[in-house]
Amino acid sequence: MPFENLGFACVDHHRHIRRGFPEVIYCPGKTIEQIVKIFCNLAEKGNNVLATRASEEAFEALIKEIPDVRYETSAKAIVLEQKELEKSTSVLPIVTAGTADLPVAEEARVTAEIMGQRTEVICDVGVAGIHRLLDKVERLQGANVVIVVAGMEGALAGVVGGLVDCPVIAVPTSIGIGTGFGGYAALLTMLNSCASGVTVVNIDNGFSAAVTATLINRKIESKG
Amino acid sequence: MPFENLGFACVDHHRHIRRGFPEVIYCPGKTIEQIVKIFCNLAEKGNNVLATRASEEAFEALIKEIPDVRYETSAKAIVLEQKELEKSTSVLPIVTAGTADLPVAEEARVTAEIMGQRTEVICDVGVAGIHRLLDKVERLQGANVVIVVAGMEGALAGVVGGLVDCPVIAVPTSIGIGTGFGGYAALLTMLNSCASGVTVVNIDNGFSAAVTATLINRKIESKG
Amino acid sequence: MPFENLGFACVDHHRHIRRGFPEVIYCPGKTIEQIVKIFCNLAEKGNNVLATRASEEAFEALIKEIPDVRYETSAKAIVLEQKELEKSTSVLPIVTAGTADLPVAEEARVTAEIMGQRTEVICDVGVAGIHRLLDKVERLQGANVVIVVAGMEGALAGVVGGLVDCPVIAVPTSIGIGTGFGGYAALLTMLNSCASGVTVVNIDNGFSAAVTATLINRKIESKG
Amino acid sequence: MPFENLGFACVDHHRHIRRGFPEVIYCPGKTIEQIVKIFCNLAEKGNNVLATRASEEAFEALIKEIPDVRYETSAKAIVLEQKELEKSTSVLPIVTAGTADLPVAEEARVTAEIMGQRTEVICDVGVAGIHRLLDKVERLQGANVVIVVAGMEGALAGVVGGLVDCPVIAVPTSIGIGTGFGGYAALLTMLNSCASGVTVVNIDNGFSAAVTATLINRKIESKG
Amino acid sequence: MPFENLGFACVDHHRHIRRGFPEVIYCPGKTIEQIVKIFCNLAEKGNNVLATRASEEAFEALIKEIPDVRYETSAKAIVLEQKELEKSTSVLPIVTAGTADLPVAEEARVTAEIMGQRTEVICDVGVAGIHRLLDKVERLQGANVVIVVAGMEGALAGVVGGLVDCPVIAVPTSIGIGTGFGGYAALLTMLNSCASGVTVVNIDNGFSAAVTATLINRKIESKG
Amino acid sequence: MPFENLGFACVDHHRHIRRGFPEVIYCPGKTIEQIVKIFCNLAEKGNNVLATRASEEAFEALIKEIPDVRYETSAKAIVLEQKELEKSTSVLPIVTAGTADLPVAEEARVTAEIMGQRTEVICDVGVAGIHRLLDKVERLQGANVVIVVAGMEGALAGVVGGLVDCPVIAVPTSIGIGTGFGGYAALLTMLNSCASGVTVVNIDNGFSAAVTATLINRKIESKG
Amino acid sequence: MPFENLGFACVDHHRHIRRGFPEVIYCPGKTIEQIVKIFCNLAEKGNNVLATRASEEAFEALIKEIPDVRYETSAKAIVLEQKELEKSTSVLPIVTAGTADLPVAEEARVTAEIMGQRTEVICDVGVAGIHRLLDKVERLQGANVVIVVAGMEGALAGVVGGLVDCPVIAVPTSIGIGTGFGGYAALLTMLNSCASGVTVVNIDNGFSAAVTATLINRKIESKG
Amino acid sequence: MPFENLGFACVDHHRHIRRGFPEVIYCPGKTIEQIVKIFCNLAEKGNNVLATRASEEAFEALIKEIPDVRYETSAKAIVLEQKELEKSTSVLPIVTAGTADLPVAEEARVTAEIMGQRTEVICDVGVAGIHRLLDKVERLQGANVVIVVAGMEGALAGVVGGLVDCPVIAVPTSIGIGTGFGGYAALLTMLNSCASGVTVVNIDNGFSAAVTATLINRKIESKG
Repeated sequence: MPFENLGFACVDHHRHIRRGFPEVIYCPGKTIEQIVKIFCNLAEKGNNVLATRASEEAFEALIKEIPDVRYETSAKAIVLEQKELEKSTSVLPIVTAGTADLPVAEEARVTAEIMGQRTEVICDVGVAGIHRLLDKVERLQGANVVIVVAGMEGALAGVVGGLVDCPVIAVPTSIGIGTGFGGYAALLTMLNSCASGVTVVNIDNGFSAAVTATLINRKIESKG
Repeated sequence: MPFENLGFACVDHHRHIRRGFPEVIYCPGKTIEQIVKIFCNLAEKGNNVLATRASEEAFEALIKEIPDVRYETSAKAIVLEQKELEKSTSVLPIVTAGTADLPVAEEARVTAEIMGQRTEVICDVGVAGIHRLLDKVERLQGANVVIVVAGMEGALAGVVGGLVDCPVIAVPTSIGIGTGFGGYAALLTMLNSCASGVTVVNIDNGFSAAVTATLINRKIESKG
Repeated sequence: MPFENLGFACVDHHRHIRRGFPEVIYCPGKTIEQIVKIFCNLAEKGNNVLATRASEEAFEALIKEIPDVRYETSAKAIVLEQKELEKSTSVLPIVTAGTADLPVAEEARVTAEIMGQRTEVICDVGVAGIHRLLDKVERLQGANVVIVVAGMEGALAGVVGGLVDCPVIAVPTSIGIGTGFGGYAALLTMLNSCASGVTVVNIDNGFSAAVTATLINRKIESKG
Repeated sequence: MPFENLGFACVDHHRHIRRGFPEVIYCPGKTIEQIVKIFCNLAEKGNNVLATRASEEAFEALIKEIPDVRYETSAKAIVLEQKELEKSTSVLPIVTAGTADLPVAEEARVTAEIMGQRTEVICDVGVAGIHRLLDKVERLQGANVVIVVAGMEGALAGVVGGLVDCPVIAVPTSIGIGTGFGGYAALLTMLNSCASGVTVVNIDNGFSAAVTATLINRKIESKG
Repeated sequence: MPFENLGFACVDHHRHIRRGFPEVIYCPGKTIEQIVKIFCNLAEKGNNVLATRASEEAFEALIKEIPDVRYETSAKAIVLEQKELEKSTSVLPIVTAGTADLPVAEEARVTAEIMGQRTEVICDVGVAGIHRLLDKVERLQGANVVIVVAGMEGALAGVVGGLVDCPVIAVPTSIGIGTGFGGYAALLTMLNSCASGVTVVNIDNGFSAAVTATLINRKIESKG
Repeated sequence: MPFENLGFACVDHHRHIRRGFPEVIYCPGKTIEQIVKIFCNLAEKGNNVLATRASEEAFEALIKEIPDVRYETSAKAIVLEQKELEKSTSVLPIVTAGTADLPVAEEARVTAEIMGQRTEVICDVGVAGIHRLLDKVERLQGANVVIVVAGMEGALAGVVGGLVDCPVIAVPTSIGIGTGFGGYAALLTMLNSCASGVTVVNIDNGFSAAVTATLINRKIESKG
Repeated sequence: MPFENLGFACVDHHRHIRRGFPEVIYCPGKTIEQIVKIFCNLAEKGNNVLATRASEEAFEALIKEIPDVRYETSAKAIVLEQKELEKSTSVLPIVTAGTADLPVAEEARVTAEIMGQRTEVICDVGVAGIHRLLDKVERLQGANVVIVVAGMEGALAGVVGGLVDCPVIAVPTSIGIGTGFGGYAALLTMLNSCASGVTVVNIDNGFSAAVTATLINRKIESKG
Repeated sequence: MPFENLGFACVDHHRHIRRGFPEVIYCPGKTIEQIVKIFCNLAEKGNNVLATRASEEAFEALIKEIPDVRYETSAKAIVLEQKELEKSTSVLPIVTAGTADLPVAEEARVTAEIMGQRTEVICDVGVAGIHRLLDKVERLQGANVVIVVAGMEGALAGVVGGLVDCPVIAVPTSIGIGTGFGGYAALLTMLNSCASGVTVVNIDNGFSAAVTATLINRKIESKG
């Protein structure tokens, strides 16, 4: 199985075959020089490339090498789209409890879209004003899978889970104060949801939620 | 200010004047002999007496001394009603997310009632089936204060808090598994509620919630 | 939307329509009398019924009322199959790291099967002897979704996640000692998996993993 | 029920009717542009508007749009008072253990006052010099509800709770070092108070304490 | 420096010289046979001997070997007094917040007394009824050092610390529910006390508090 | 690579070749029937077999099948020695801080010995009486590797680490009260040791420490 | 009992009488303006004044008002000595495990000295090189009380505790990495010390340790 | 035993004899002036000197005194090699899960090399692409001991542990987000590894892992 050894990184070119999407660059802890080299190595193969949690400095270094990259400010992602992807027929709803959860939702949206998944972001429908959510229920009930992004108390995931007949992928966010513990309270809420069918990813991990949701939609569309 | 020294306990006979209700016996950590002595000391003054988290053994020892006590099995409380109290005009709703939260709700009910507070227990309306709650909203909206008892994800308190115009006292319960951490997940959910007006008591502390709610109702009725 | 108020429980008869499977009885914290009444109420509607984390005592009380129930000892589940379900075409692999993780895998298996989902349990292929897992890879690569059940270090979920092109639902178990912290170490491992496409449920929650996996397979089969 | 969708936010104009006070803008995690837009949207309806945990930068951006806003430096709140409110007859005591707890008390004061609640801040009467508190007891005993703000050991709430016949709303603050754990020690102290009638809000959440206290006073005054 | 090797234990006969009191047997984790052998080994040297956290079974096995031992039931200590000790001139106050803290206070009392320290136990003067404590202040103000034993919120130590001019040794106890976390909440309260002069020992460790207090009194009396 | 599938277990017969010692049966979470079957399967190959954390019930069931097994009571291990092993030339010191740490040291001893490693247990030399340890230093300084077993404060590992020129394997034990947190305090102490050369295993994991130490000694003896 | 209300602070002028030393200003969370006002208020009474955890900015603001203040850089304390104190006859040893623990030791030294207590700082004698400590034992054995300051593993307190016949006050410091958890590991080590006679203060709280030690020495010298 | 007292530090010149390598300067918490003085003191003895976790500022101050020092940027270490060391015959593999773990691996490499240990760094072979690791297995199987450096889920250590017949020293790193908790998740994974023979050091402590591994290799080579 092929991979390429750059010394500081073993780039997994086989992942696309094995997992259905190319390797993605998770930037924290890597030097800008390393990010640029891995990104270029992946780009040379002609793939679309995604770097998550990237700083603006990394983007500025990269655009000198590859003029076609773009920076998604809210998502903090660097994106190179050089290969046209067939768009999914399904639409993936990405729901947030509050406005402050939007950057995590954006990371999910950018990730899904570079994999060809169409998305719809539904923002600020948290449980403190439940009528805002009830207004959107019908749109959620048509989905194959729903992503719910929520910080603070994180209760939205369980409420949505009780209203739809598809899996809900819950993303706790680090929004909140004091005993929110940087998203830990929301994580626990989601793990303890009484509504079955809710699974959870790491705090602020919009990326992983989007990959999972897209894999589900792909399976459905490939069998359809 | 009067209190009585039994050696192992200083019974605070002044509490009734200062706080509006007599001292209550919290049983854990006390020997049965100590519980009986304190209970009898309080009973001698002619008050109604309440012992919480009491074992059946304690009850059996006590009924030999005071035949009029009764045991509230679900609430695990020993009650002596020997002085007739004026009933409140208000009714205090005590709402639970699930059936398993009932013992804590019962502790709240027994506590409120021995203070003269009328109550209504509304059981098993958790957020996984939100229509069950919406069905009860009108009854909640007429209250001065609502107690919400919930374990697992504990999301019910915030949802109720978004629907009523009165304070919500949230009681996390130790119901749940794994990362429920004995009620800690529900506690965090409640503390991080986006719905303002929600305050929280210790895990399983139906007693304290009931005292607070009754104090609020009393203030309202005494001014009315 | 219909539900039935038993006083201590609001049985959600609408869940079958809304969520695609009937309400399930989670036993902890309920009295045996309550379990029996809710079970009978659900059974009267002609549905298959499942009670999880049930004691043998509950089973013995129930079989007096409904002779057709059976007890799944390892899963600690009470099952009533009175309505024949169409079996899924897909097979759901349920993989465990060790022998001690089997009861949680069994809860997942029983849950999936009562929803009509066919399953295959693959046991004791943890990472300390990775050749045992590699031997099974091909069978996993044909699945739409895989459940991985692991305690102690919980590393199996991420390793499987790197080998398949479908979502992995990870179930941490409470197997382990000391800093395993009753499944918390395995939970953290799974939440921090470098392999994207891994989502996580609460510790020992085989039930929720099975519901999610079955919902995914249903979506695929209904569209196929 | 009315709300307004700004894309990144669903402004809940119905909250005033349902909850008795308008939606409040919690600033952390929102961009300055978003804060300004939501604030203006609320202001257009003619309400008084409050933005909490606001930076000076947000204030400076906002005053360009709405010259009448003012910045409460200690409370870090932006306030727009454009509708005259009837003042409450009750006075709400807001008590702090130390000088460093003052910003949280100020958030409570500003919140209460924009809801029409009159307040009195009593500062630096912590338990290490209990005579300072005993000197103020009479003023506290006349209140309908008391807010106690304390960091470090957080013991003041329980001591006040033992001295008054009304509910005490305890606000732990993040003041302290080491095992104060950013307010967590004070939170636990307050949750475990032996004085019943004490309920707790999240660390540093002066806002929620003030809303709760004001709701209680309103209920009393509306019935009076 | 002398010690004696029993194979499973190195009995430190030098401790009496180096530390001013003989080695004490901490029973948990030791077999009854081991406890008996170490106890007899220490007793043979003619010292007074103390075994803490001892079961009744251990006591019954021991009294067969050494008829003069006695069992302190509340303290769960086995005591052998065979050497007459000069009594201290000072009296050590051991103050408890509640009745349930008494067993820990008893461990402190028994430990101090076998070292010759006179004691006075003052029980159930917690902060929820502060007048009970104020009534005792004068007796505390005459002491060289005070032990305060408190569970639940643990606030008593800081309040006492603000009232006396001597060191306070605070012993958190495991009394409480939920977020009391087995004494952890009380421990944190005590560590974060605003009253300087308060030092803390491990949860339920009445033994260590008594040793420290007695060492302080001895230093004072030896210099006096 | 060979392994044998018993349905509930994949017995890894290749481990002996790959890792230098046969698979060991960790009993918790396995039924007695499963333990017996795996043990017999391993025994049939002619190897010595070890089952750790085994109950007496498991031993009694097993001795009916294999009369030559023996039960190590303190270590809670079942041992079958049917193949004579060459004894190591090295001696492995296993040092404990207290008597109560002995069962964990015994698990280490039994494990090492079934791998052919000679051992010496040095008991009860904790830092509260440091002269007891200094008396043993010379014996430790001759070793290739030392195991240190300690609960409570766990300080012994670092002190030994500062005195020898070989690696120290530290085993925290669950001995202690309150903030010992079941061995967690000792674990943290050991992980934060200022003496480099100290590595740590899980709480109470005498087994893993012994395997590591024996692997080191084998490498030395095989090269010697 | 006298105190002075500055609005934002109740300065406790009675503390000197009640507790034996004047109120001390703990700076974090106070504005520079508040620090200056409280300091001046205390200085006007002619006392020596101490402000702990003070920034250089606070010092610079203060020296404009009171030219005689000095800044202790390592201790981060502002000191005003305007009243000559009788020096203690005793010398208080303040022992540190490492060089990095020195700032906390300095806070203890400055605090003790402004109370008239003579001190000796013994630095960098941690357990990884135990001979450095043994070299100093004699000096420690002459003391009435010893302060031990240690971060990382925090083992020094227990080792000292086993060597002296006086109380040891242990101060954990926030020095360390990873699982040192900002001093929490050292705190737990100290709380779980096997050497009785060790009591503990909050992380980095050199101030409280010094007050306690000085109170002990004063009691001894006043009785001597 | 010799050591040198610099006032703020006791430099342990005996460590080289007792432990086989000179004292190493751990920089955090020390002032630059202190670092320079200790470094020069050690250098004067003619030893090679290592300062870990050193800032560039410390390096720049030091190079003015000792022109031969060099700064290892990734490892953040200052190195002085003035005495030629015999190189080990063994090669120590240092394996990382990802690119971001490289700085910790570099600290291990620099530490080992200044002790004369030859090393090989194998980078970015984490379990999400297990074929990258399997490609390297043969090189690992020839080692006496392997260091594995991994953040996030930390699963690599256990997988390597199952593949080699030598000890594995696992170093968790602080790489990750949310519930990675700064390396704590990886630490727990490693402590709970099912593969015996894995021991663990503190988070990010490449230094201690390298010392331990080098001590093992030295023992082997000295006996060979």
